[in-house]
Amino acid sequence: MKTQSTTLDITKASSSRISEVDFDNLAFGKHYSDHMMICDYKDGQWQTPQVLPYGPLSMDPSSKVFHYGQAVFEGMKAFKDEDDKVWLFRPEDNFKRINISAERLAMPAFPKEYFFEALETILKFDKDWIKTGKGNSLYIRPFVIGTENGVSASPSSEYKFIIICCPAKAYYSNPVKVTIAQKYSRSADGGVGYAKAAGNYAAQFYPTNLAKEKGYDQVIWTDANTHEYLEECGTMNVFFRVGDKLITAPTNDRILDGITRKSIIALAEDEGVTVEVRRVSVKEIVEAAKNGELKEIFGAGTAATIVPFLGFDFNDEYFELPQVENSYGARFKTRLQDIQYNLAEDKFNWTYEVK
Amino acid sequence: MKTQSTTLDITKASSSRISEVDFDNLAFGKHYSDHMMICDYKDGQWQTPQVLPYGPLSMDPSSKVFHYGQAVFEGMKAFKDEDDKVWLFRPEDNFKRINISAERLAMPAFPKEYFFEALETILKFDKDWIKTGKGNSLYIRPFVIGTENGVSASPSSEYKFIIICCPAKAYYSNPVKVTIAQKYSRSADGGVGYAKAAGNYAAQFYPTNLAKEKGYDQVIWTDANTHEYLEECGTMNVFFRVGDKLITAPTNDRILDGITRKSIIALAEDEGVTVEVRRVSVKEIVEAAKNGELKEIFGAGTAATIVPFLGFDFNDEYFELPQVENSYGARFKTRLQDIQYNLAEDKFNWTYEVK
Repeated sequence: MKTQSTTLDITKASSSRISEVDFDNLAFGKHYSDHMMICDYKDGQWQTPQVLPYGPLSMDPSSKVFHYGQAVFEGMKAFKDEDDKVWLFRPEDNFKRINISAERLAMPAFPKEYFFEALETILKFDKDWIKTGKGNSLYIRPFVIGTENGVSASPSSEYKFIIICCPAKAYYSNPVKVTIAQKYSRSADGGVGYAKAAGNYAAQFYPTNLAKEKGYDQVIWTDANTHEYLEECGTMNVFFRVGDKLITAPTNDRILDGITRKSIIALAEDEGVTVEVRRVSVKEIVEAAKNGELKEIFGAGTAATIVPFLGFDFNDEYFELPQVENSYGARFKTRLQDIQYNLAEDKFNWTYEVK
Repeated sequence: MKTQSTTLDITKASSSRISEVDFDNLAFGKHYSDHMMICDYKDGQWQTPQVLPYGPLSMDPSSKVFHYGQAVFEGMKAFKDEDDKVWLFRPEDNFKRINISAERLAMPAFPKEYFFEALETILKFDKDWIKTGKGNSLYIRPFVIGTENGVSASPSSEYKFIIICCPAKAYYSNPVKVTIAQKYSRSADGGVGYAKAAGNYAAQFYPTNLAKEKGYDQVIWTDANTHEYLEECGTMNVFFRVGDKLITAPTNDRILDGITRKSIIALAEDEGVTVEVRRVSVKEIVEAAKNGELKEIFGAGTAATIVPFLGFDFNDEYFELPQVENSYGARFKTRLQDIQYNLAEDKFNWTYEVK
């Protein structure tokens, strides 16, 4: 069914696939909602975005994304409150960041109006895919791929900006054990580590598999030059609580400017917790673990929200973290979710209602 | 038309598209030969490879390659001699390297028998796409992509190994001007720079565009830590001739183990030229340029073979290279091509006839 919009070209699905989904037993990323957005870039400009039924893409085998990796993405979530209102969390920041990522990979910026109109249209059509209750959400995956046909190593002249959505429960169900990287690296100074570029993730899989063989869930990445400073962990930023201080690495060209990360910094400062945004050395954290000052480590990201760490390995020595009362990680996760699910006042102006 | 093979599942194209191609005015990577190979990996093993007519892939938008960049490739060429015999150049090395790249990106190794049987079948079917004459070749692009559906950040459980081919003339038609990287980086210690991973290429496009705006064709990448040592250039390894010595950087986890690179080293040693495989500092090359000892710089790669550099920029100072008689770059290019086109004896056992 075609319908009209001033900005979009809309084709509504003739029926919903929602009855195929067991929402009580969701595997993350396996089911997609009824609609998606595709917007083509060609002849030097973005064409009219199409909202249409979710379905396969026809891709030439020479399509540049398969060969030269021009691909960036975002992760967002839509939440539903008890009045069936739908909320996004700081969506402007995701919009800005996907264009920052795209610029670093020599891809064109996407128009803000297209992004928000398409997103709101999909969320209205697929509102039933968003379940109420903390932990439930609709995970939103905007991504951009280079689609020009041709295996010459140069930026694509054609792109697709796509938005797909999948229902989600909490991404990591359990606290994690991690190991500190001493050989492999996630990104270089002057590289693309700060971008949500597809290639950054593939590069982590092999070292993460090695960590898993040793019984760890993730790797805490260190700086590639010296492996002396702690940076990111898997798909998350990392926070260290030493005594009552919260410490996290500054963003730079190796570290993603995480939206959950900066929200936690704001919440901590709001509560009067001292936050130090500075380089965090492995040595300092190992010493704090030894002398009992290290209280918590947790990861922060959109998919995971906040994930507590059970302990970490360094140089084949395992440091178990204590069980603390009044955990910062648990407290900030509750405060974040209360804002996201419209259960608490949003004095930061982070939420965005989809009407 | 289905035909039988013990190893492959073959469907021959009902007609050829070769008449659509103007072989005198080829744009690299724009036309693909009649057949391709696709082999699916699922349930923990590679399935029967299919040789079939070139055509589009149906890809789910959640396919992991679009999100997490598991994609590696190779570049090879088939050459035709004056007796219409078809030759490959060191194909075992490409086969080995694609599996080395795949391992670093947590992708499964591909069986050698499948690779060679599929390659030879395609080349026999599409023999007419290979034109005689130096500079003409059929460029062969094997690549592997993660095709499992699902946006969770973990290695794909499904892959496609694909081989496509496109007729080629010389890749770079002209000598190039380059600039030495002082801010941006191609890869980190402990990273994936040595792999032919798709993401390595996308990461280069933006800094290369900045170089082009200043009038340079490519960037010579330096080490990410200090920017003091010269590494690769665009899609090529780099050689420096200082006096009568040839110097090139050693391969490591940042630098691709180029097949053209090691062939040049072997040719040079065969001719009694002193080859130093060691770190090459920017300072040393700038000083050699200033005192007149720097005779040549050239790039080496499968697509480009050997590309002479006109000059280089460092710190906004441009160093023009001299016009030398008895150029190493020109000489080794001739020797390499003579071997590739079966015009000279192949005492190195590099060539491989497709029968």
